[in-house]
Amino acid sequence: MAGNSFGTLYKLTSFGESHGKGVGGIVEGVSPGLKLDMEFIQHELDRRRPGQSEITSPRDESDRVEFISGHIDGVATGTPLAFVIWNKDQRSRDYDNLKDIFRPSHADYTYQSKYGIRDHRGGGRSSARETIARVVAGAVAKLMLKELGVTVQAYVSQVGSLKVTKSYKDLDLALAETNIVRCPDPDMAKQMIAYIDGVRRDHDSVGGVVSCVIANAPVGLGDPVFDKLHARLGQAMLSINAVKGFEYGSGFSSVEMLGSQHNDEFYMEDGRVHSRTNRSGGIQGGISNGEDIYFRVAFKPVATILKDQNTVDREGNEVVMKAKGRHDPCVVPRATPIVEAMAAMVIADNVLLNKTYR
Amino acid sequence: MAGNSFGTLYKLTSFGESHGKGVGGIVEGVSPGLKLDMEFIQHELDRRRPGQSEITSPRDESDRVEFISGHIDGVATGTPLAFVIWNKDQRSRDYDNLKDIFRPSHADYTYQSKYGIRDHRGGGRSSARETIARVVAGAVAKLMLKELGVTVQAYVSQVGSLKVTKSYKDLDLALAETNIVRCPDPDMAKQMIAYIDGVRRDHDSVGGVVSCVIANAPVGLGDPVFDKLHARLGQAMLSINAVKGFEYGSGFSSVEMLGSQHNDEFYMEDGRVHSRTNRSGGIQGGISNGEDIYFRVAFKPVATILKDQNTVDREGNEVVMKAKGRHDPCVVPRATPIVEAMAAMVIADNVLLNKTYR
Amino acid sequence: MAGNSFGTLYKLTSFGESHGKGVGGIVEGVSPGLKLDMEFIQHELDRRRPGQSEITSPRDESDRVEFISGHIDGVATGTPLAFVIWNKDQRSRDYDNLKDIFRPSHADYTYQSKYGIRDHRGGGRSSARETIARVVAGAVAKLMLKELGVTVQAYVSQVGSLKVTKSYKDLDLALAETNIVRCPDPDMAKQMIAYIDGVRRDHDSVGGVVSCVIANAPVGLGDPVFDKLHARLGQAMLSINAVKGFEYGSGFSSVEMLGSQHNDEFYMEDGRVHSRTNRSGGIQGGISNGEDIYFRVAFKPVATILKDQNTVDREGNEVVMKAKGRHDPCVVPRATPIVEAMAAMVIADNVLLNKTYR
Amino acid sequence: MAGNSFGTLYKLTSFGESHGKGVGGIVEGVSPGLKLDMEFIQHELDRRRPGQSEITSPRDESDRVEFISGHIDGVATGTPLAFVIWNKDQRSRDYDNLKDIFRPSHADYTYQSKYGIRDHRGGGRSSARETIARVVAGAVAKLMLKELGVTVQAYVSQVGSLKVTKSYKDLDLALAETNIVRCPDPDMAKQMIAYIDGVRRDHDSVGGVVSCVIANAPVGLGDPVFDKLHARLGQAMLSINAVKGFEYGSGFSSVEMLGSQHNDEFYMEDGRVHSRTNRSGGIQGGISNGEDIYFRVAFKPVATILKDQNTVDREGNEVVMKAKGRHDPCVVPRATPIVEAMAAMVIADNVLLNKTYR
Repeated sequence: MAGNSFGTLYKLTSFGESHGKGVGGIVEGVSPGLKLDMEFIQHELDRRRPGQSEITSPRDESDRVEFISGHIDGVATGTPLAFVIWNKDQRSRDYDNLKDIFRPSHADYTYQSKYGIRDHRGGGRSSARETIARVVAGAVAKLMLKELGVTVQAYVSQVGSLKVTKSYKDLDLALAETNIVRCPDPDMAKQMIAYIDGVRRDHDSVGGVVSCVIANAPVGLGDPVFDKLHARLGQAMLSINAVKGFEYGSGFSSVEMLGSQHNDEFYMEDGRVHSRTNRSGGIQGGISNGEDIYFRVAFKPVATILKDQNTVDREGNEVVMKAKGRHDPCVVPRATPIVEAMAAMVIADNVLLNKTYR
Repeated sequence: MAGNSFGTLYKLTSFGESHGKGVGGIVEGVSPGLKLDMEFIQHELDRRRPGQSEITSPRDESDRVEFISGHIDGVATGTPLAFVIWNKDQRSRDYDNLKDIFRPSHADYTYQSKYGIRDHRGGGRSSARETIARVVAGAVAKLMLKELGVTVQAYVSQVGSLKVTKSYKDLDLALAETNIVRCPDPDMAKQMIAYIDGVRRDHDSVGGVVSCVIANAPVGLGDPVFDKLHARLGQAMLSINAVKGFEYGSGFSSVEMLGSQHNDEFYMEDGRVHSRTNRSGGIQGGISNGEDIYFRVAFKPVATILKDQNTVDREGNEVVMKAKGRHDPCVVPRATPIVEAMAAMVIADNVLLNKTYR
Repeated sequence: MAGNSFGTLYKLTSFGESHGKGVGGIVEGVSPGLKLDMEFIQHELDRRRPGQSEITSPRDESDRVEFISGHIDGVATGTPLAFVIWNKDQRSRDYDNLKDIFRPSHADYTYQSKYGIRDHRGGGRSSARETIARVVAGAVAKLMLKELGVTVQAYVSQVGSLKVTKSYKDLDLALAETNIVRCPDPDMAKQMIAYIDGVRRDHDSVGGVVSCVIANAPVGLGDPVFDKLHARLGQAMLSINAVKGFEYGSGFSSVEMLGSQHNDEFYMEDGRVHSRTNRSGGIQGGISNGEDIYFRVAFKPVATILKDQNTVDREGNEVVMKAKGRHDPCVVPRATPIVEAMAAMVIADNVLLNKTYR
Repeated sequence: MAGNSFGTLYKLTSFGESHGKGVGGIVEGVSPGLKLDMEFIQHELDRRRPGQSEITSPRDESDRVEFISGHIDGVATGTPLAFVIWNKDQRSRDYDNLKDIFRPSHADYTYQSKYGIRDHRGGGRSSARETIARVVAGAVAKLMLKELGVTVQAYVSQVGSLKVTKSYKDLDLALAETNIVRCPDPDMAKQMIAYIDGVRRDHDSVGGVVSCVIANAPVGLGDPVFDKLHARLGQAMLSINAVKGFEYGSGFSSVEMLGSQHNDEFYMEDGRVHSRTNRSGGIQGGISNGEDIYFRVAFKPVATILKDQNTVDREGNEVVMKAKGRHDPCVVPRATPIVEAMAAMVIADNVLLNKTYR
C-alpha cells in the first residue's frame, strides 16, 4: 500500500534511505532451482554505480550486494530472497545545511508535508539510491528470462537535443555498452559525452531519453483492461526517479497518423502469425503478440545543480540555497540499467501470471 | 490479478463484453453518506456515448446505468456499489464475418492466443465499450472530490497535426464542452471538426491528444517509490484503449532543458509554499505539492477503418478483410470523459490512502 | 480492501444487500474453456435456499442466478464472470420497526458506528443472504476442481449437544444429502431434526458444527508462512456468518496429545508417500500433502429469535424489542453448501497459485 | 502472493531461514513520528527466545534486532522499517542426517514436493525461527496501539489436559509473566511446569492453548463479509507454526447453546452502548463493538521429539529416523508473545484501514 512493493507474483519490496545503514529489498517469485549468477548480478549493479565515469556523480559507492536468505549454495529455493547493499559513503554532515530547506523540484517539501518528518540526508527515501534494489531484483528477473530466451536491452537515444534518429532495428545495440553514455551510435555517443561534460562544467544538468527493446517475449503476456502490459511497463518506468513521460510503439507520433497508415498488417511466417510493421510495439489489446516490445522513457534534467537557487525553508522564510554537493549532470547513462531492471521485472511477473491461465 | 480491478481503497472491479448482456462494475471505497447525484452520473455517461455527434460512431447506445446495491434512497452506505449498463444494440450478427479473422492492430490475435477462446463480437472484453464502467466509477469519484473542492477537467488538445499551442492556463477550459470535439479553443475546434469529418468520409481514422488538469488537489497525495502519483496516473491512462503515451508536467519536452531552466523555484504566498513555475506538473517525488496536476495522453488512430485490409485468419490463411461496420473516425472527443474518470479515481484513491498516515 | 473480495487468482468480489435489488458478484480466474454447467450451479443454490424444508427459514427465495458476462454460449472465456440473483421477496416494511433498534448479537450497532449509516432492512449487507454469491462462485470452483478429480463434501456433524462421534472415514458421506439436516448418520439425523423442530416451536435457535472433507487434492497447495493452506481455509470459514471457531485435522483435541502419539508416520504405497494416520489433516507446514484435508466449523445459534429481548436504540434509550419476522432455528443444514463453496474457492485459488512455481 | 506478507496497510513482509544468515522483515504502515522504544522491542524478542528457561529449547539465540532503515534517530519516518536478526547458533552440520529424510508431521515432504528443492537445515523457511520477524513487527504495532490505549495480552490457559477453568476476567493476567509457563493462575502454572518437565524427560512433546485478550479496542474495527475482524485474527493465528484451531468469544462452546442464552443484551452505561454479556467476543458482524476481544488458539505437540520414528526418505525408502537435536517439549510458553504480536498487527492494520471510511 505504501508504495514499496512492485509486481504481483514476481515482486520486489524495497527499503532503505540514501544515508541510512543500507538499501535493499525482498524478492518473491524467484523460480525454485534458479542458479543465482552472483557475478552477473554484481555486474548489473556496477552499471548503475555512480563514479563509473567522468560524466556521472563522483559519489563513490562500491555497492556490493549481500544476500541474506532465499538460496542455498547460490541456488534459489523459492523462499524470499532478501538482500542489502550497505551504505558506505555516508557523508551525512554534507547535508546539515539542507535539514530545513526545501530544495526546488525535489521531494523535500512534499515528504515533509505528507509525513511531518523526513530524512533530509541526501533525499532519504526519495533518493535515486533506492534504485539499487530495483537493479538487483531486475538482474534476478533477467536470469529467469534468460532461460526463456527473452532479452531486455536499453540504451540512451537522446541527451538534450542530441537525438539518435535511427530505429533500434538499424542499430547494433551491443555497442551501447562500449561507451560511457550508453548510446549505440558511436558518433552520437561522442557528441553526447562532450555535451554532458560541458553541462557538468557549467554546474548544470540536462535531460535525456532511454529507449528499451524486449526481444523474444512469448505471445500472451499481459492482462486485459487495467493491467495491460504497456500500462504495467508505464507505471514501472514512471516510478523511476526523474521520469516525466512514457510511450510505447508508435507513441506520441501515432497521433498524427491515419489508421490506414498505422495499422500493422498480419501475415504468416515460419508457421506463426507476424505483423509486417510493428507500430503496436509488440502489444495489442494490452497483450504481447510476439513482436519486439519497445518503448521510450523521458528523463528530466536532475534537480540537483551546483548553482545558487531561490527557495523557502520549513519556517516559510524565502532563502537562497547555496550550491553544494555532488550530482549527475545527466542521469540517463546510469538510468539505462534501471530501465532494463524494471522492464525485466514486469516481464518476469507477467510470465508467472500467464502460467495461471491454461 | 486478472486485470479487472483498478485502485486500492477506491476501487473499481469491472465486467462485461461489447455484445454480451451488459457492462458494469463494483465500486468500493465510496464514502458512506455520499449523495449519489444520479443526474450527474448519467450526464457523464452521455458525454462518453457514441452517436452523440456526427464525428463519433453511429452505434446507438442509450446507456442508462442501473445501480443494484450499495445505497439506500440514493445515499451511499459504504458497501459495494454494483451497477450494470445493459447492452441494447447487440447486432451480433454483424460480427459473424470476424469470428475467425484477426483484425490488424486489434486484440483478436492476442486474446485468442492467451485464452484459446474469445468473444469475437465487437471485440468482446477488449472493446472500448468496457470504458462505460470507468465513467460510472469516475463520476462517483468526482462526487467525492467535489466535496473537497478538487476538479478534474480534460480537453482535446490535438487531432492529427492540429495542435492547441496555448497552455491550459491561457484557455477557458469550460469552452471544451461547447463543441463536439471538446477543444476549448473555438477556432481550433472548428478546424478539428472539419478535419475529422474528412477523415470519416475517407473511411479512415486519426489520432489525437487529450490533456487533463486536476486543480485544488491537496498536498501529500501519492506514495513514494513504486506508487508515485504520476505512475498511478500513467498506468490509469495507459490502460485506456488506444493510448500510446503519457507525459506529465514538462513531459518529453523536459529532455531538452537544463536543470537551471527546469527547476521550479519555491516562494511563499497566502501563508503556504508555492512554486513560481510548475514544470513538476504538481507532483514532486511522486507526491502532490498543491499546484495544478496536469498531463497529456496520446491516442493512436483507432484500428477499425472502413477499408479493406490484409490479414490472417485462425487457421493461418492470409486473407483480405472486407470493410464493414461502424467506427469512430477519431476517438479523443469521446475519450475525454474517460480520461477524467480515470484521473478522478486515482485522486479519490489517493485521498483515502493519504488518510492512513497521520 | 473493504472486505468484499476473496481469493488471489480465483477471486470473488461480491455485492448486494438483503433487501436491495439483488445480490451477486464477479468471479475472476475461471479457466477459459470451462463449460459452465448451469444446472449444477442452480442445484448448489437450491441447497442453500431458505424454505427448502420445515427446519429452515420460510422466506421464499427462488434464487435463480443470471450470468451477465464472462462466457459465450455457456463456455467461460477467462474474462470476469458477473452474476446477479435478483431479490424477490423484499418485504422491507417488515423491518420498519428495526430502523432505529440495535438487535442483540447482530451487526446493527457496529455497522451504524462504523459507517454512520446502514441499510436496516433484514441486516442489509450483513445479512446471510450475501452468501448466495459465495455459493455461485463456489459452484464454478467445483466445476474447475472436478476436472482435477478433487471433491469437496461437507456435512452436519453436530446440532446442540447431538454429535456424530464416528470419523468421516466411517460414514457414507453421500447420505448427507438424503435428509433435510444434512447429517450422514441417518439415526442421528432424525434426532437432530426432531430437536431443531422443537427449538423452532420454542421460537429459539441453536448452534451446530459443519465438518468438511476435501479429497484428492494434489500435493503442494498452499504457501508457507502467512498463507498456509489451513490459514486461508480458516479465514474463509470464519468469514461465514455466525461462525465462531475453526479447527483442522486433530484440531483442539491435539492439545491433550503427546508428540509421539500425534505425529503422522510416513510410508510408501503405490509409489508415493503416504501417512499412516492423518492428524495433520492433509496439510503439513501449510502445504497439502495429498491426504484428505478435513476441518470443522462451529456455528453459534443465530441471533434472530422470536422472543422479546432487551436492547437499546440509536438514541441510546433502553427498549424491549418485540419478537417478529422469520428465521432459521438452526443454520447448519443451509450452511453446509456455503462451507463447501468457500473450501472449493480456496482450493481452486491455490491450484492456480501453485501453477506459478515450476 | 507467495505468503510472505501479512496485513494490508500495517504490513510485514518477512524473510529468512533457520540456518541461513538471518531472519528479518520489512514493516510498512508505521506511523511517521512514532518513537521506536528499542528496549521494549528487544524485551518482546527476549520473551520469544529459546533457552529462556528449563522448559524451552536449549538453542541459544541472543537474537538482537538490527534496524536498517525507516527511522531517523529512533523516530519512525513512515518509510519501510527493515530489520534483520542475524543467526548465530548455526549448527548446520547437526542437520546433515536430515538432508534426505522427511521428518513425520514436518514440512519436509511438502516443501520438497512443491519447490523441488528445500533448505533442510533446521526446517529452513518452515522453522518457527521465522516467527522472530512477527515478534518485531508486533512489538512496533504494540507501540502504535499503546498511543490509543489498546492492550494485547496473551497467556497459557491449557497444557495437555491441565486447564485454567476461570474466565480471563477472574484472573490477574499480569501474573502470566511471573512464571516460566506464562500461566496467570499460579497453582496451575506449577502443575503445568512439572508436567512439561516430565514430558521433556520422556523426550516427548505436548500441546497447549494460548488465550488472548485485546482490551480498549475502538468500535468499528474490521470490514464486513470476507475481512471480518475475527477472520483476519483467525488467519493470523492459524499461520503460526503448530496451530490447529482458533475460536473467539463463545467459540465451539456456542454450538450447544440456544440463541436465547447466547445473545448479548445491549444496555447503556457512561453514555455509550455496552453488552451485558460478551459471548460475541467483542466482535459483531465482523466489526469490533468496544467490548473486550478474546480468543483461544490450539497448539499441537511439536513434531520434533527425541524418539526414533518410522518415515521415508527422498528416494522413497522406508527408514528409521534416529532421535537427535534440540526441541521445545511444549511450545505454548514461547508462543504467547507470538500470538500477541499477530493480534497487535491485525488490530493496528484495522485501525489504519478504519481511518479511510469517515
